[in-house]
Amino acid sequence: MVLRTVAILSPGDMGEGVGASIKGQGIDVITVLAGRSNETRMRAERAGFREVADLEALVAEADLVLSIIPPERAEATAADVAAAMKRACANPPFADMNAIAPTTANRIAGLLADVGAVFIDGGIIGWPPFKGENQTKLYVSGPDAVLMDELDGNGKIIIQIGEEIGRASAVKMVYASVTKGTDSLLTAAYTAAEALGVREILEAEWEKSQPDALVRMGRRVPVLPADAGRWIGEMEQIAETYASVGVTPNYHRGAADMYRLLDSTPFGRESRETIDKTRTMQDSVKVYVRYLNAD
Amino acid sequence: MVLRTVAILSPGDMGEGVGASIKGQGIDVITVLAGRSNETRMRAERAGFREVADLEALVAEADLVLSIIPPERAEATAADVAAAMKRACANPPFADMNAIAPTTANRIAGLLADVGAVFIDGGIIGWPPFKGENQTKLYVSGPDAVLMDELDGNGKIIIQIGEEIGRASAVKMVYASVTKGTDSLLTAAYTAAEALGVREILEAEWEKSQPDALVRMGRRVPVLPADAGRWIGEMEQIAETYASVGVTPNYHRGAADMYRLLDSTPFGRESRETIDKTRTMQDSVKVYVRYLNAD
Repeated sequence: MVLRTVAILSPGDMGEGVGASIKGQGIDVITVLAGRSNETRMRAERAGFREVADLEALVAEADLVLSIIPPERAEATAADVAAAMKRACANPPFADMNAIAPTTANRIAGLLADVGAVFIDGGIIGWPPFKGENQTKLYVSGPDAVLMDELDGNGKIIIQIGEEIGRASAVKMVYASVTKGTDSLLTAAYTAAEALGVREILEAEWEKSQPDALVRMGRRVPVLPADAGRWIGEMEQIAETYASVGVTPNYHRGAADMYRLLDSTPFGRESRETIDKTRTMQDSVKVYVRYLNAD
Repeated sequence: MVLRTVAILSPGDMGEGVGASIKGQGIDVITVLAGRSNETRMRAERAGFREVADLEALVAEADLVLSIIPPERAEATAADVAAAMKRACANPPFADMNAIAPTTANRIAGLLADVGAVFIDGGIIGWPPFKGENQTKLYVSGPDAVLMDELDGNGKIIIQIGEEIGRASAVKMVYASVTKGTDSLLTAAYTAAEALGVREILEAEWEKSQPDALVRMGRRVPVLPADAGRWIGEMEQIAETYASVGVTPNYHRGAADMYRLLDSTPFGRESRETIDKTRTMQDSVKVYVRYLNAD
């Protein structure tokens, strides 16, 4: 199968990057922008996406639909796409690339199966194409995941990891559970230290006996609020993933709580582009503690 | 005040080490061994502790009582000591050196105040004296914490951090929340990866993009069960500490769950001395997953 037209839902930070990479491979990239923000429109234009009127037009034209959206919207969006497929009498393959639990991926696969569409499970690791130092990794799994191989290249790598739906999502979930779990745990500890009035004592102790942790706090504590809002749902999906195999979901319930706190501060309105880079972790935590609700 | 006799409750791994260090400073170290295990007796003998008959004899003879025990027993032990002080009409200063929440430390201070005894808050960071590369740090706080300065030296450092009861406990809690929180989070992720059938894929990914996390898993995943039983209560105290200032307790509820799981495996019966050092993290996790209770 030759992919001539790929649909991207939606042109967020990652969606724009992946779409621009695909566009650069000579493939037409389409999306729906009705009712979307000016920022989303701007991203779509910048990446060279072609706008179509609605989801029915999208599924009628697309050879493949890629879902790249916040995880808490993944299931509802897939249901909308499946309903549009039914109305349009068109059912192109649907790849869910979101940070969702394998159980969620399997429910979404069921929605697509109901309208006769092929489902591909996916998980993205790394920064958007061309933004980080390394190529973006798109882990994919499922009986038809080989369809994705045509998208390999131009800043991204397709990594096939088997026929089972849920494997690619599992890889993404466990990977993010370590990176985003550790970053938020360190920020929670730093916030607790400030709230307990022992931050400076711990900074001195960490500098001597846990220097890597202190360096990581310095790098991550001030910038996490910019991403926090998007990561709450991801932490909840990780908690569901762990629970599905009997591992405690509590760490990532805690991580969701912490990202919710950071998102509630004024810095939660920053984006990666607008972060005040002069703000230290000390400056930041003094604000975070004002948003705590003590017992 | 010159310390001639210091009581240690009890000669566990840390209690033995701290007691031996004090004994080496020319101070008589006493303890109660009635009803204790042969291992505890052996430790007390090795460290040169002198046995006294019961808690009443202990408080009658001691110039200072150091409580170094598992955190879940700290409050009950302090209550027993306070009752013995009342019966013996003797109330030497009592220093709680345990991994307990500041709120717990304050409750214990209240028990000692009821019998007119001075209370010192403490928290120990590092390996027992002479066991690690660095000196053992005894953080202390409280109006009378200066009494502890006589114990400085011989493999341990006394660090004064102020007049407030709870500060030393807060330092210990936040410090351990990072070290033991991160170790157990990494072990949870590794266990989830195995249970989800994607461990080898993640090992390859971590090796490329998170090499430090993989190295730490290799070092910590196989050995944590030996300490897990002792750390469940400590994680619960950390959860209480975080909650007392409005920071989410969920990470360390998760850590308590994880240490409970590790303690329930056959490796939970190992001690630091008897760990099978040929066992890899792969060998270990294959056993851990057998003890999971999936939904």
